[in-house]
Amino acid sequence: MEGYRGHPVAGDGAYIARACELAARAIADAAPNPPVGAVIARGGMTLGEGYHHRRGEPHAEVEALRAAAGAGADVRGATAYVSLEPCNHHGTTGPCSEALIAARIARVVVGARDPNPTAAGGIARLRDAGIDVEITADPTALALIERFAYWIGAPIPFVTLKMAMSLDGVIAPWPGGNFALTGAPARERVRDLRFEHDAVMVGAGTIRIDDAQLTVRPHRTRRKPYERVVVCETDAVPVGSRVFAAPNTAPSGAYARTIVLAPGGQREHFAALEPVADVVYAGAPDATLLDLAAALRALRQRGIASVLCEGGPTLAGRLLERQLVQRIVWFVAPRFLQTPQAVPVLTGADLTRAANGWRFDRVERVGEDMLVSARVGHV
Amino acid sequence: MEGYRGHPVAGDGAYIARACELAARAIADAAPNPPVGAVIARGGMTLGEGYHHRRGEPHAEVEALRAAAGAGADVRGATAYVSLEPCNHHGTTGPCSEALIAARIARVVVGARDPNPTAAGGIARLRDAGIDVEITADPTALALIERFAYWIGAPIPFVTLKMAMSLDGVIAPWPGGNFALTGAPARERVRDLRFEHDAVMVGAGTIRIDDAQLTVRPHRTRRKPYERVVVCETDAVPVGSRVFAAPNTAPSGAYARTIVLAPGGQREHFAALEPVADVVYAGAPDATLLDLAAALRALRQRGIASVLCEGGPTLAGRLLERQLVQRIVWFVAPRFLQTPQAVPVLTGADLTRAANGWRFDRVERVGEDMLVSARVGHV
Repeated sequence: MEGYRGHPVAGDGAYIARACELAARAIADAAPNPPVGAVIARGGMTLGEGYHHRRGEPHAEVEALRAAAGAGADVRGATAYVSLEPCNHHGTTGPCSEALIAARIARVVVGARDPNPTAAGGIARLRDAGIDVEITADPTALALIERFAYWIGAPIPFVTLKMAMSLDGVIAPWPGGNFALTGAPARERVRDLRFEHDAVMVGAGTIRIDDAQLTVRPHRTRRKPYERVVVCETDAVPVGSRVFAAPNTAPSGAYARTIVLAPGGQREHFAALEPVADVVYAGAPDATLLDLAAALRALRQRGIASVLCEGGPTLAGRLLERQLVQRIVWFVAPRFLQTPQAVPVLTGADLTRAANGWRFDRVERVGEDMLVSARVGHV
Repeated sequence: MEGYRGHPVAGDGAYIARACELAARAIADAAPNPPVGAVIARGGMTLGEGYHHRRGEPHAEVEALRAAAGAGADVRGATAYVSLEPCNHHGTTGPCSEALIAARIARVVVGARDPNPTAAGGIARLRDAGIDVEITADPTALALIERFAYWIGAPIPFVTLKMAMSLDGVIAPWPGGNFALTGAPARERVRDLRFEHDAVMVGAGTIRIDDAQLTVRPHRTRRKPYERVVVCETDAVPVGSRVFAAPNTAPSGAYARTIVLAPGGQREHFAALEPVADVVYAGAPDATLLDLAAALRALRQRGIASVLCEGGPTLAGRLLERQLVQRIVWFVAPRFLQTPQAVPVLTGADLTRAANGWRFDRVERVGEDMLVSARVGHV
């Protein structure tokens, strides 16, 4: 079958969309690998579909080829649609480029190039073998690997900062209140975000004030245990905090031991937490103030590739000040909460010197609330 | 021609959209009347179009009938599309319902019902005359008369509160700075808003700090002079403020004398402004603090039916606190500006007791910024 080098074919978009849909099924479980989906099709007929379930298991292309073989389909001369460039290296599985060549696939449509220098090269290998390769740079395919594309080249996880505020930039009309600012649909969306990130993180103040549990309710099954992280800039949090209790509504093992990030020089102050939490001392051994970048590096070394930070205002300000945030997700409630004691969405930071270029790329109504999201602009 | 009572006809939407487009041409000039547009059509052919140019001039329906007659078209049996219910009263012009009946129009499609109890009744009159009437309740048609629908039954103007802030609810990183927060497209949108409202209004602080001129640059011709209002809660503003100077880039007469709203009991403190401004003393004759509701009533009595308030944070807070705002227009810049001296978007108010139900109904990117808008929810 003659390929159409450099020319998209009608229907390509729909198949790449389907490949992205399949990829998204493992958005939480594939990490630290990127989620990938694949479809093998010919003449408007799908011959096989697959996605990468988790690290160590077959890649999407191999899953799709196996599904086609299982259905007795002949894939010779067919087109493979993959949300991400097929890998070209011997990692925990063999190179997908070779599997596609061996199966005599005639054409490969790729949603996004692989940002991983170790695994990339699949497109070149396929073309060397005479296979027609099309790269669509599909926005959905690029969004799927946004976190992966960052952490693969960075010493820290991809940090998404999620905050909810009123139209006047307030999170509570007075300090200390556990204030329900947004509606149920927004809270459901936050649950999705928790599920999609390798870890959820809050500052010590949020634990002290809200005694947040940081669970996903109702429970959503996830192959990797949920990771919860408490950032203690100086002092420890109470040992009886609910974040340290195993949530009794979820299956045993669904939650990992909560991680506490503590300053390297505060070991004696955090000793009491060691029986209930995984206390990680970061930064210099005499530091009494947490080095946030060092703390994030420690998370990355433990295999946490993406973090959803849910505040509070002090931690949010610190992360922005130190330019450690890659994406912001802002829920804005349609109300005003100004009072003389109001708690602003960010506190204690001086952000005039921090990188201030953000690019809005998502906006939508979520119930009665508004969700705006922006990516750091690298300006 | 047989009408299709109660059933929309293909193409109705496009004609109503066109009627709304025509109406919008006079959005500034028709006030205090609502803007109205009309199209007479038959069999997919437009016979005549018109809109209400300004109070005292013919209504849209009459303009459209005249245009059709001028073109030698026979309108008998045709359909009239009007963005607003035809009037049924003898105001400064005759009732449009009678004009349509006399012209033997067979069918009338109405974008929005007339909220004015004095003028309404046109639909009933048309139906009594055997004319088929369809009401589409088109969102664009309803948006066109939003301000009119409010002030026709209220003792104060429709107040739109427009503010621009950073993602952390800040308008400037430190007090006193004239800080360009949003981009050129957002500033252009503000110019449109100034043009569409009967008056633009700011607090004394904005005059003292920014020395704002409140003009529309580049100048946009407008039949009614631009009205500028300065709200002085207690003290006067400097007599040399630029808002009192006749803008020398605009045609003479384009700007009315600036209105200063002053507390009833502060006459001697505002006497110095009387030569340069139209000082309106509102509220009780011994009041030293401005009664905002009384001040807005005074504007309404002077024929100002809609006001665009552009802050600052104190006036914005006061207006919200007293529930005098009907729509908010919030520009959000994709940046963070928190500092220990940051100026929040609202100050000095306690909004926990004010009506807090707002409904987001518009959101869009404007250049690099985000615009969200909400209507008060009357909860």
